[in-house]
Formats: sequence, C-alpha cells, structure tokens
Amino acid sequence: MNIITPKNLSGFMELVPKEQVLFEKIKQKLEETYRLYGFYPIDTPILERSEILLAKTGGDTEKQIYRFSKGDTDMAMRFDLTVPLAKYVAKNYSELTFPFKRYQIGKVYRGERAQQGRFREFYQADIDIIGDGELSVMNDAEVPSIMYHVFTGLGLQDFTIRLNNRKVLNGLFELYGQSEHATDVMRIIDKLEKIGADNVRAELAELQVSAEAADELLALLGFKGSNEEILEKLRAFAGRSEKLDLGVQELSEVVYYMGKFGVPETNYRIDLTIARGLDYYTGTVYETTFNRHPEIGSICSGGRYDNLAEFYTKKKLPGVGMSIGLTRLFYILNEFEYLNRSLATSADVLMIPMTDDMTAAVEISAKLREAGISTQIYFEKKKFKHKIGYADKLAIPYAIFLGEDEIRDNQVTLKKMFAAEDDAEKQVTVSVEEAIARIRGGLAVRKEAKCIRIPE
Amino acid sequence: MNIITPKNLSGFMELVPKEQVLFEKIKQKLEETYRLYGFYPIDTPILERSEILLAKTGGDTEKQIYRFSKGDTDMAMRFDLTVPLAKYVAKNYSELTFPFKRYQIGKVYRGERAQQGRFREFYQADIDIIGDGELSVMNDAEVPSIMYHVFTGLGLQDFTIRLNNRKVLNGLFELYGQSEHATDVMRIIDKLEKIGADNVRAELAELQVSAEAADELLALLGFKGSNEEILEKLRAFAGRSEKLDLGVQELSEVVYYMGKFGVPETNYRIDLTIARGLDYYTGTVYETTFNRHPEIGSICSGGRYDNLAEFYTKKKLPGVGMSIGLTRLFYILNEFEYLNRSLATSADVLMIPMTDDMTAAVEISAKLREAGISTQIYFEKKKFKHKIGYADKLAIPYAIFLGEDEIRDNQVTLKKMFAAEDDAEKQVTVSVEEAIARIRGGLAVRKEAKCIRIPE
Repeated sequence: MNIITPKNLSGFMELVPKEQVLFEKIKQKLEETYRLYGFYPIDTPILERSEILLAKTGGDTEKQIYRFSKGDTDMAMRFDLTVPLAKYVAKNYSELTFPFKRYQIGKVYRGERAQQGRFREFYQADIDIIGDGELSVMNDAEVPSIMYHVFTGLGLQDFTIRLNNRKVLNGLFELYGQSEHATDVMRIIDKLEKIGADNVRAELAELQVSAEAADELLALLGFKGSNEEILEKLRAFAGRSEKLDLGVQELSEVVYYMGKFGVPETNYRIDLTIARGLDYYTGTVYETTFNRHPEIGSICSGGRYDNLAEFYTKKKLPGVGMSIGLTRLFYILNEFEYLNRSLATSADVLMIPMTDDMTAAVEISAKLREAGISTQIYFEKKKFKHKIGYADKLAIPYAIFLGEDEIRDNQVTLKKMFAAEDDAEKQVTVSVEEAIARIRGGLAVRKEAKCIRIPE
Repeated sequence: MNIITPKNLSGFMELVPKEQVLFEKIKQKLEETYRLYGFYPIDTPILERSEILLAKTGGDTEKQIYRFSKGDTDMAMRFDLTVPLAKYVAKNYSELTFPFKRYQIGKVYRGERAQQGRFREFYQADIDIIGDGELSVMNDAEVPSIMYHVFTGLGLQDFTIRLNNRKVLNGLFELYGQSEHATDVMRIIDKLEKIGADNVRAELAELQVSAEAADELLALLGFKGSNEEILEKLRAFAGRSEKLDLGVQELSEVVYYMGKFGVPETNYRIDLTIARGLDYYTGTVYETTFNRHPEIGSICSGGRYDNLAEFYTKKKLPGVGMSIGLTRLFYILNEFEYLNRSLATSADVLMIPMTDDMTAAVEISAKLREAGISTQIYFEKKKFKHKIGYADKLAIPYAIFLGEDEIRDNQVTLKKMFAAEDDAEKQVTVSVEEAIARIRGGLAVRKEAKCIRIPE
C-alpha cells in the first residue's frame, strides 16, 4: 500500500500526550476559576456564515480568514470569540439574563503567514460580562481580578496587569486640543514602549501636535509611580473635562476594588500609555505582562466596550472582557521549560498483574477507582522489566504488583516509582485498603502542585 | 447601521447557557471517567491536509466533507476522530508508549443534508487503546466497561451494550460456505433488526445462499438467551473452524471480564446479528442501545481493528475503541426532557449587596470562593425584586443579602432560593463561617445529583 507521510498543516499545534495532559490541566484550571465567579460556558460553531463573521470588515481579517462555499452557502471559520459572542447575545437575547457572564475556550483560525510561535489554529480563553443598556464599573474591577486568580492558580506570580482608561486618555487629548484625532494620537501613544519617546514625538508632530504639548503629554503618560501617585496627578486636572473626571473616577474605583478582590498591589498598576489600538474600547483597558519576559508582549488583554453587538441588534449591550491567547501562552511556557512535567502522567497507579488470570487485578483496580484513584492495568504479556518501564516512561507515580502470593494473602505490593533511594517505604506489601490510604496521601501532595513552575 | 440578522448555519447546534452548562457537565463526566482508567487526552487540528483525511477514500465521505484550498494548500475539516488518531499515532510513533490509551472529545464536520436531529458540526467522544504489533483481548473487555461507567455516572441505567465478534461471524460463514462474500453476508445480517428476517432471507438468496443455510444461520444468529447460553451454542461448533474457535474464546473472555469490571449482566449481552458494516473491524464489535428508545439506534459503538494506521505507516498497530456521538446524544436527552435542569446554574450563591459600598460584598465573596463555593456578586443598581429575580432565573440555589446591619454585625442573611414553604431555615442571619458550612452541606447533596434524570 502507498504510504502517505503523516504531517500536519504548518501553524497547527499538535501536542504529544505528556504535553497535552498539561494543556488540559491548564484549561481545566481556567474553567474552574471562571465558574467560581459565576460565569456560564458557551460554545458557538467554528463555522459561521461569512456575512455574520465579516459584518465588521476591514484590516487584515478578511485576508487571513478561512472562507469557502459549499452548495450556495458562503461560510468561514471564526477568527476570534468576540464576533461569535456578539452574534450569540443578539440571537439569544430573549433567552439570556443580564448581566450575562460567559466564558468560552475554543479554537479560532487565522491564515497568517506561519512563523515560529505564531499559530493558524489556536485556543482563545475569553471571559466577558455583558449588560443590557448599562453595566456597573465594578465589573471592570472583577474581570482582571479573575485573571489574577487564574494566573496565580496556575503557578504564575511574576506578572503585572496594566490598567488604563480610554476616557482618561480622551479627556487629556481634549485638554490638549487633540480631540479631533484622538484615535490617531492614541495609536501613536500606544507604540511608546515599542518605538520610544523620540519617535512618538516625531509622529505626533506630523499630526500638528506642538512640541510643548507632546512633551507635557509624554511626561504625564510616562510618569512612573504607585497607582495612588498616578491617580493624584490625574486628579489635579479635576473640573476641567467631564470625560477626564469620569475616567479618573472609574480608574480609581477599579484600582480600589481590585485590591478588595485580593489582587496585591505588586500585580497591577496604572499605565497611561496603554491604549489598545482598537476603536472598540471605550473605558477601562488591560494588558498583562510577564515581568521577566516583557518581549513576549501581553499574555492577557481586553477592556470595556459600549456596544457589543451593534451589527446584529439595535439593543445597546455594553460589556467588559479579557482574553488569554492560550495556545501561544502554552507554547511560550513550554519553550521556557516552565511547565511542571512531573504532573504529566496518564494515571496515578499502574496495576501490574503477575499471573495469567486477571480477575484480581481487575477487581482491585475497580476498588482503587472507586476511591478516586486513576488506575491503569498493564494487560500485555511482556517481561517484567518492560512493564515497570511503562510506568516509568509514563511518569506514573505508583505501581502495584499482584502475584500469586499477594492474591492468596489478599494483599498488594505497592511501589513508589519516584521515591528517594533511602526511602524505607519505597516498596511495601500491604492490604488493598492500606495501599489506597497511602496512595491518597501521596496524591494529596501532588494535587497541591501547580502546572507552572518557574525556577528562581 | 445596517443590522444583519444573527443566525447560524443549519445543522450547527448552539445551546443556550442553561443547556450548555449541562452539556459541559456531561463532557466533564466523560473526561473524568476516561482519566480514571489511565487514558491520555489528545487534541488534533480540525483542519488537515486533504490527502491525509482522504487517504482511505470512498463512500459518502468525500461528498460530505468540507474541503477547500487556501494558497496552494488543499485542506479539509476532519469528519471523524479515527483518521486523525491514525495520523497522530503514525506521526508521533517514536514519542508514544504502547499500549497507547487516548481519549479525544472534539468537533467533527459532515456536510450532510440537514434534518431534525442530524448535525453538520458535532462532538464525538472517542476512546481507543492502540497496541504496537499486538494487543491483549483484555482491552476489548475494558473499553465497553468504561462506557458502562460513563453512562451510569451520568445517570443512565436503562441501556444495553451489545457485543459480537467478527471472527465468530466469519467462522460461521466459513462453515456455511459463505467465506467468499462474508462481507456482503455480514452487511445483510446487520440489517436484520431494521428490515426483518424475511427481507434478510431474500437478500441472502440473491447471494446464492441456500434457503436451508439462511434459515440455520438466522436461527443461530437470532437466538435469544443469556450470554452463557449463546456461548454454549457457539461452543457446540468447537474444532470445526479455527477462526470460529478463536472468536468464541475472545467473546467468552470479554463476557467474563466485563462482569469483573463491574458491569451487571443486565447491561450487556451477546448479539450475533451485530456486524458493524465497516470492513475495518476484525474482532469484538459493540453497539449500545437505550432500552426504552431502540428507535434512536446505537448511542455508543466501536470495535477491535487490526491495523489502525496502514495508510500512514508500515507498523502494525491493532486497537480497540468506542465512540459516543455526544451532540446527538445530548439532543435526544434534551428532546425527551431527561436532563436534570436543576443543575443548570451559573453559580452556587448570588451575593446581593444592599449598600453602595461593595467592599464587604467583595471580601465575603472571596471567602466563599476560597471555600470552593462558586459566587457571583450582583453589582448593578436595580430594585431588590430585580436582584432576587436574577437568582431565580439563573436557578442559583442560594442568595446572600448584605445590608448595613449585617455588615455592622459581621453577619450575612442567607436565603435558600428553592426551599419548601414550611422550611424554617429558609432564610437565616448567621456568621459568614456558619453560612459557608450551611451552603457546603446543601451543595454536597447537589453534587450527588446526576446529569440525566429519567422518570420511572
């Protein structure tokens, strides 16, 4: 038979099992955390009508999209989870209760030029809270706080959630007479970190922003200080622009309540240079940087918007959300060797029967599983070395040997696969109940272990 | 602005939140059970090269597939999880440890004519065990036993896993001189339940099967009895066909060990009429029927095959697996109103602050979440009726009211949302610790509840 070389399309991540199991653990931790805050899961089709996905056209989206026809239907693969959310909320409006809190973790598609660390199929993990007509700014404090708990729950500590508010920026531009091209100014400011102050000044000059105004703006926006110090600087403008005052008020509330949500001051800070290019955002905006790797850019971003679904409904649906590029994050963690590979196993116990009759092995394994212990039985007729090597390769923490003696005595031989050489209890022959108790004790320690482990 | 009506492609299931949350619970139960038996998760791309997906061509597959080109790449959306598994195992062979046990729950695509209960995008939930060169028949007993535990874990009791073995059928056809067109005979036999004995006889006659042979075969294959009685009938042929003897031996082992795996005799039975049309299967085959709804056909099927990946590698990789059509199963359970809707909630507690300052609400909610209680805070400024109505609509079992008095006294008012009228503890004002204890008690009861609830 003709053999076809089994290869994937480029830009499509496919993990080997010991990586996949960690990816799943991370995904579960996200879901678990989102649910802890009362978010509903949703799941939308990967294929949608092109007219739905491309309602808001422009930019690179159309070039990158996977679009095709079948019969007389023009369809495309989703390129983010925001457009499907907008469609979902407009379509199911009468079935939803607002504020509507939803998470969605799903694959999205972008036919970009493939390059290292860039994916054409990748998971996004989004949370959004959608209001009907209005939505309290408290939600703007809750959303990044949830992300804080997601990252620390995974074992990541060394990150900063950076906050800004578009009303603050717009208010300042008003004061500096730049309202007309606020969006352009914002786009330029947004590049501050990337291109440096001089280039920003040059680009602003092209927009006829005076050198003096540019300097004042850059000094203010680039000011480094505690959240309270930055808020103090902004409060000095009080009474001069309604928009600015409102923005400062919102930013103050977000900063105050994030603390109450349990986010330590060291993990979030106001950064007035963050604008999030998209026109879409109207209030709070967020980016999240990995302190020791600023070069990888934001690992979790989002913000507040006034109108989620204007292309699909006349209802005003404001919302706030953040998104994690999960596939890219996983890729980076894997590259940096920050994943806790000791958790990458298929089972807690490998049951190794030493007799031809498997009855006892099957029955004892059932007891282990009833006790919540994941148990795989090695059924194949292989040499002992091969069987124990299997547990070793799969990083299974416990092996149980079940020979004629054990079966006769109603016992099992329990071996800790990765015990220290001098561990006196490395291998013991005990009753099934005692084995279960010992395994559970060992697993409880493992359960505390986080998916991400960053060396000091 | 021009409004585009938000609608989906037909044949694409999209659930409202209270349905989606149940779908997710079912999916989680599946994953949890698969993991309990030592299965690794894998995740393969939804898009693959067409030459990979269509390596084994023919049938309706090619017509139904979503296939398109981008640049000069000819690609298609996967139509099952078996072909991607074959590619995965061949591609990652050197990274895998055999027997390789994997589960995959993912969306697959078939551009079929849309009709009620038929989906173009649907989830399959597959488990397979792949051996390198050989694979013990014990795995044939384990796989359906896992599915038994999946279904009963979901709350479904009233189902039958039907077993057969292709070697038994082929051996019998050999004895009846039908080896040449065994596949055709098998296809006809497979239709017995659908078209009836007379039509089967007529079709067999077209293949030149004598009326006498057809009658004998049908009497044997259609014989109703206990598993042991059927095995006895088959053992009467011992020594006449090696293939038959081997098949009977395998079937006996599977029947014996399924019992040891904890499957009650009432939930599985040998059915010699099951052939599973595909040429692909070579030993044990399975179908699963919902006893009170035989009309919906098999909800979980599969079998043993000799060669998983012959199109992608010269390695011989035998395996055994079963697959649940999850989207269709969910659709059916929903239509029959067998889903336990009381579990369809976004959170355990709705925290309702009665003051403008949200500090206490945020801090107490953090304590609840630390105790593992999913807690949503109602932040919007609405009338009390509206707030409590929110908990009611979302089926949230507990509400906490937090007014000035409670905050001053370090207490909360805890209300059971769905308590009986005469429940004296329907609403109590207690300490946060006491509230947590009460909520945990109530949730423990809910946690026992199954996703599927079938009225007697």
